[in-house]
Amino acid sequence: MNEIRLIEVKEDILADNDAAADGLREKLKQKNTFMINLMASPGAGKTSLLLRTIDALKNDLKLAVIEADIDSMVDAEKIAATGIKSVQLRTGGFCHLDVSMVKKGLEAVDTEALDLIFIENVGNLVCPAEFDTGATKDIMILSVPEGDDKPLKYPLMFSKCHVLLVNKIDYLSLSDFNMELLEERVKKLNPDIEIFKVSCKTGEGIDAWAGWLKNAVIKK
Amino acid sequence: MNEIRLIEVKEDILADNDAAADGLREKLKQKNTFMINLMASPGAGKTSLLLRTIDALKNDLKLAVIEADIDSMVDAEKIAATGIKSVQLRTGGFCHLDVSMVKKGLEAVDTEALDLIFIENVGNLVCPAEFDTGATKDIMILSVPEGDDKPLKYPLMFSKCHVLLVNKIDYLSLSDFNMELLEERVKKLNPDIEIFKVSCKTGEGIDAWAGWLKNAVIKK
Repeated sequence: MNEIRLIEVKEDILADNDAAADGLREKLKQKNTFMINLMASPGAGKTSLLLRTIDALKNDLKLAVIEADIDSMVDAEKIAATGIKSVQLRTGGFCHLDVSMVKKGLEAVDTEALDLIFIENVGNLVCPAEFDTGATKDIMILSVPEGDDKPLKYPLMFSKCHVLLVNKIDYLSLSDFNMELLEERVKKLNPDIEIFKVSCKTGEGIDAWAGWLKNAVIKK
Repeated sequence: MNEIRLIEVKEDILADNDAAADGLREKLKQKNTFMINLMASPGAGKTSLLLRTIDALKNDLKLAVIEADIDSMVDAEKIAATGIKSVQLRTGGFCHLDVSMVKKGLEAVDTEALDLIFIENVGNLVCPAEFDTGATKDIMILSVPEGDDKPLKYPLMFSKCHVLLVNKIDYLSLSDFNMELLEERVKKLNPDIEIFKVSCKTGEGIDAWAGWLKNAVIKK
């Protein structure tokens, strides 16, 4: 029997994407532009968090948002209403963004004139975790109603993010969500992660998060 | 409100892939190598058809097979047992092949020394239809037990293929499959398609298909 050559396509594709992401990250650094990749399940509050964060930072930093959505422009319209430059990537069924898609979004904004670009990734805790977008920092939201067991189910996402925003803390009193247990589970996967507890509804905790982000952008 | 720039990611990604596919097709033509992209549902008989076709052509043409599978090497092992060079692409969950993946497979074979390369795509009638692999010809199999209504459900696949192989015709007597109705539905989508009726189990119809293919490869 002939020898069979085995090629791991997914590993190769991810390695190619990782190399492209490192290249993009370096290029953005040279332009002094900070880019955030925001990931979460559908409905966890990505767009609400962006709106709160834009409101907190728009007087101090030049911002833009790249929205990804399988097939709608609702989120981009909400962002554009704030007066911030907004680009909508319609993925047409793709479940994540990769570097080549992010680059298409960046072509539509003037990266050199911007301090901070937000990417709102497709709502999904699985595939976006695998594809590096070239962002300076990866940020995820977990909302209280999703439950404190999510780090056990989606370990890669929790492992790769620099910041976890626990959103909808206004639901805590109605829920059996165990914040201590969540933090323990997250820190076990990722001891260096920063955790902020926020409510995009009431605004609680937004200042601490926005302050951290502003500081990270200025120090970049 | 700011103007929102809308970018159709999927169309852009497909356009990039189409351009790469045209480049690969031209390169293979210059090397005098014919490449077939074989697509079908899981279980329609892709590997069985390859084994029958290899048997019919291996004395006349220099052949190789690139197998794609989400997570196994079973098909590649069957091909390797015939003495034909076999490469296994393990897609790790990806539901189709694109040009960049096919190129990784081609790196493992000596394209210049080959007359004909078969790609066995991932078992799926949807996504593989969207991604041009750079093959000289796209071939699909529909097996009788799948039913004569499939052109209504997967029109893109039937529209883009150069050849339809209707496999498992040995089941016709047990089935209400209407061959005339199938051909009518297929020709309505794709008037130029070649249709061959085969049974990989009994070998019926294989000579006509293999003869057509050999002729196409020689005339390339």
